[in-house]
Amino acid sequence: MSKVPVGVEPGFPGKDYADPPAAPLIDASEFGQWSFYRAIIAEFVATLLFLYITIATVIGASRNAGCAGVGTLGIAWAFGGMIFVLVYCTAGISGGHINPAVTFGLLLARKISLPRALAYMIAQCLGAICGAGLVKGFQQSFYMTYGGGANAVNAGYGIGTGLAAEIIGTFVLVYTVFSATDPKRNARDSHVPVLAPLPIGFAVFMVHLATIPITGTGINPARSFGAAVIYNRSKPWDDHWIFWVGPFVGAALAAAYHQYVLRAGPFKQLGSFRSAPSRV
Amino acid sequence: MSKVPVGVEPGFPGKDYADPPAAPLIDASEFGQWSFYRAIIAEFVATLLFLYITIATVIGASRNAGCAGVGTLGIAWAFGGMIFVLVYCTAGISGGHINPAVTFGLLLARKISLPRALAYMIAQCLGAICGAGLVKGFQQSFYMTYGGGANAVNAGYGIGTGLAAEIIGTFVLVYTVFSATDPKRNARDSHVPVLAPLPIGFAVFMVHLATIPITGTGINPARSFGAAVIYNRSKPWDDHWIFWVGPFVGAALAAAYHQYVLRAGPFKQLGSFRSAPSRV
Amino acid sequence: MSKVPVGVEPGFPGKDYADPPAAPLIDASEFGQWSFYRAIIAEFVATLLFLYITIATVIGASRNAGCAGVGTLGIAWAFGGMIFVLVYCTAGISGGHINPAVTFGLLLARKISLPRALAYMIAQCLGAICGAGLVKGFQQSFYMTYGGGANAVNAGYGIGTGLAAEIIGTFVLVYTVFSATDPKRNARDSHVPVLAPLPIGFAVFMVHLATIPITGTGINPARSFGAAVIYNRSKPWDDHWIFWVGPFVGAALAAAYHQYVLRAGPFKQLGSFRSAPSRV
Amino acid sequence: MSKVPVGVEPGFPGKDYADPPAAPLIDASEFGQWSFYRAIIAEFVATLLFLYITIATVIGASRNAGCAGVGTLGIAWAFGGMIFVLVYCTAGISGGHINPAVTFGLLLARKISLPRALAYMIAQCLGAICGAGLVKGFQQSFYMTYGGGANAVNAGYGIGTGLAAEIIGTFVLVYTVFSATDPKRNARDSHVPVLAPLPIGFAVFMVHLATIPITGTGINPARSFGAAVIYNRSKPWDDHWIFWVGPFVGAALAAAYHQYVLRAGPFKQLGSFRSAPSRV
Repeated sequence: MSKVPVGVEPGFPGKDYADPPAAPLIDASEFGQWSFYRAIIAEFVATLLFLYITIATVIGASRNAGCAGVGTLGIAWAFGGMIFVLVYCTAGISGGHINPAVTFGLLLARKISLPRALAYMIAQCLGAICGAGLVKGFQQSFYMTYGGGANAVNAGYGIGTGLAAEIIGTFVLVYTVFSATDPKRNARDSHVPVLAPLPIGFAVFMVHLATIPITGTGINPARSFGAAVIYNRSKPWDDHWIFWVGPFVGAALAAAYHQYVLRAGPFKQLGSFRSAPSRV
Repeated sequence: MSKVPVGVEPGFPGKDYADPPAAPLIDASEFGQWSFYRAIIAEFVATLLFLYITIATVIGASRNAGCAGVGTLGIAWAFGGMIFVLVYCTAGISGGHINPAVTFGLLLARKISLPRALAYMIAQCLGAICGAGLVKGFQQSFYMTYGGGANAVNAGYGIGTGLAAEIIGTFVLVYTVFSATDPKRNARDSHVPVLAPLPIGFAVFMVHLATIPITGTGINPARSFGAAVIYNRSKPWDDHWIFWVGPFVGAALAAAYHQYVLRAGPFKQLGSFRSAPSRV
Repeated sequence: MSKVPVGVEPGFPGKDYADPPAAPLIDASEFGQWSFYRAIIAEFVATLLFLYITIATVIGASRNAGCAGVGTLGIAWAFGGMIFVLVYCTAGISGGHINPAVTFGLLLARKISLPRALAYMIAQCLGAICGAGLVKGFQQSFYMTYGGGANAVNAGYGIGTGLAAEIIGTFVLVYTVFSATDPKRNARDSHVPVLAPLPIGFAVFMVHLATIPITGTGINPARSFGAAVIYNRSKPWDDHWIFWVGPFVGAALAAAYHQYVLRAGPFKQLGSFRSAPSRV
Repeated sequence: MSKVPVGVEPGFPGKDYADPPAAPLIDASEFGQWSFYRAIIAEFVATLLFLYITIATVIGASRNAGCAGVGTLGIAWAFGGMIFVLVYCTAGISGGHINPAVTFGLLLARKISLPRALAYMIAQCLGAICGAGLVKGFQQSFYMTYGGGANAVNAGYGIGTGLAAEIIGTFVLVYTVFSATDPKRNARDSHVPVLAPLPIGFAVFMVHLATIPITGTGINPARSFGAAVIYNRSKPWDDHWIFWVGPFVGAALAAAYHQYVLRAGPFKQLGSFRSAPSRV
């Protein structure tokens, strides 16, 4: 999987964009740059804030059940809205992953190096632990009473259903990430990056609407891991593998779909694509 | 209807945009291009994801009725938000239709060829069946208990009311699509495409707020068809014609309104239009 | 009031924008242009769709009270979201007013001529009647049972409170419209028009959140008039003057605030303004 | 703290942006400019409208408890949405602070002068008093019955939890403000300012989702002060210091994080940053 080719010859006649070269698997020069460490710090802080705000929303909504709280709709907004805000804030610093599954998908597509991917994932997991820890630290009893925002397959659904929900949900998210950052798109529409955080946040919002009843919605292994560590009860730990395997499989499928189906193929006819209908 | 003229002479003096030539009714050269097949795949996948997320939201909201679920407001967000995300992701690949009524409207306006329109509609319907099928596959009992997300005219409303709701609702959607993709608009405001998926998604959200109580809101024959096939009970099948006739009539009216009223007319005075008040 | 001066000398040194000249009070040449009549048709259709979607949402939410419907929050979204969509769609055709108070404010600021303003207002009122009429036509009994979406001062609030709510609410809306269409802003930020419909729609959404409990929220005389005509009961008619006087006073205050405080003043120091802090 | 350096040499080779020079601590020339007074008026009016709309929403939602009102989710939207609209409207006039904590953060980062910061804060507090006063004036009995929208630490949470909630919540907001207005970002992406009000508004929305159950959410000392003055009961006054200390500490932390971690550091390697992965 780590050999997904970019598949487009640079300078192909008729192209108005250039694919960046594939990131080297290991880029020793990165380690000497402040921007590398700054990016890791930014991922840590963003994931911390993500867990803090979202888990606090979950606990607050559970405490004020029924119509007195923000409800499941408010919880879905918290996850999607925070991703919108944090991707907007960190995109220029670290690329705005805030999610090991996104990092994994971009690693498969050779957009980042392996050491950077690993460092991001560790920073994300540590940030998630700290964010969930803050919520527990500030409201100990409510946190444990209301489930700590931990992910697990809910009663009435099987393990397979939970795994499938995570796979497809992460596919939606990572497919949106790839679409938003496609260099072809950027060339034609140079300011797409401005809007990109919004559909990415909405993708997260949508998946939460659909799958909160099934698994509480992970689609982000760091989010699931941080809550599991801090809540630390057996049910979330028993199901925990689902929230790593599902998102990583979903991210790999999205990377393959984007690279092999949407981007690859007989690019010789690309010039003719321009006369194709384009609604937006 | 298939002869709607574009009605604007290319190169008219004083114009700062050029209408693309009308798409040929049949364009044999399309069949030799990978981009044609890739667009069909993208429509299939997008409609599959659309049905999967939205129908799962409907089932989850029905199971957690009252304030414990995302409610009717959350369902409306799921439909509108997914259209926003998916139009954003597929616009550069297939035009981002994800809806046979949109494809039909663009065919009438001669923006796409007939074979492409038919291929899109088939891909959309197959995708919708697969998306609804996934929801049923993963949660068999809940799916059938809670109505499978199928469209039908609700108790208390007549057939005529349901048909009218579908016609006007689709008019709102397709009118927004035409407004967002008007070449005149693009010329003046070259980055409109960036924002276009958002009002299109909001149009879908709005129509759902208004007509979920009446028909569950179709305005997308593939969505209605996919859910009807998988749910397969008599009531949705009895009313099913409404969810094809209504959206196609609404799309045709929107195409006619845009081409004959808003775009056509005595374009000789177009130059004077620029001094007209323009709020936005 | 119709003599609000634009107050900025064209070509002032150091300015990077030019205020358009004040619209003539009566511009006979408009009557010979198709774009004039097309704009009137667009205002009629947009206001019709606005009333149809929003009043249907109100009736549907009332019928499915409690958590089964979209609730008051969904109603507020319907009004704000439709304004976003319709301003986006009609901005290039008519300026996207869809509201006699907005038309009145732009008339006071000399952005449109008097005949155009009157024609828009008549088209808006007729469109609103038709839109509300469609809702009643399709669901006669529910429409009358649930109040027809008509505006009136609710129990527990006085006439003065209702009038004040309409004045301040319309001030928020028209102030946002003026901010979004300020030529100074456009010069510095040439694509502001692209985003403008979104804050305008949000302003409408916000005012509905605040004042639905008080008056049902008018801030749009055509919307109040159309619902009053179709519902035709004494309470809405008794209070009806509030929904014309309030919005017109609010629009006039917003026009005066924008023209006399924000835009006018000693422009000789404008050059120095550029070094002023600007957060966004 | 008032000596936070900007830390970047202007004209550094390879940079495509220039940091504006640090604002002088006191700039006597400001006092002779109309734009200075206009900015203060704009902050006063914006904060007045902010309190009026949001507090009216709080009172209306409390009066129509359960599902009949807009609920806690609607309240969170009111705060976030109004910040979006008002930042959009006032950004070009005053920078769109509408919040003493934001003003304080920008003062620490040397983006505005001390007299301007003090004048803004006074205008914001006076505007907030007037906005809350309007709500009380129009609906006296409901206002006092339903708590006047005043901030206080809710039952079940300690003072420390409330203070921490305000610190982290304001950190999220001011971090977003700094990210949105970073001159490096603006250089690469010249129209970021267009979108900036949206993530800033969303940050406010997110924090309200998370902390309304804890403190009612301040993160804006003027908002807390205005409501406390008009409501004038002992509980909000006893806790009132939290809503100044928390936001100011949070803003200072965000300013330090942005200036010392994200912007500062060994900028000599900045050129290499461009080849860093950037998702958005």
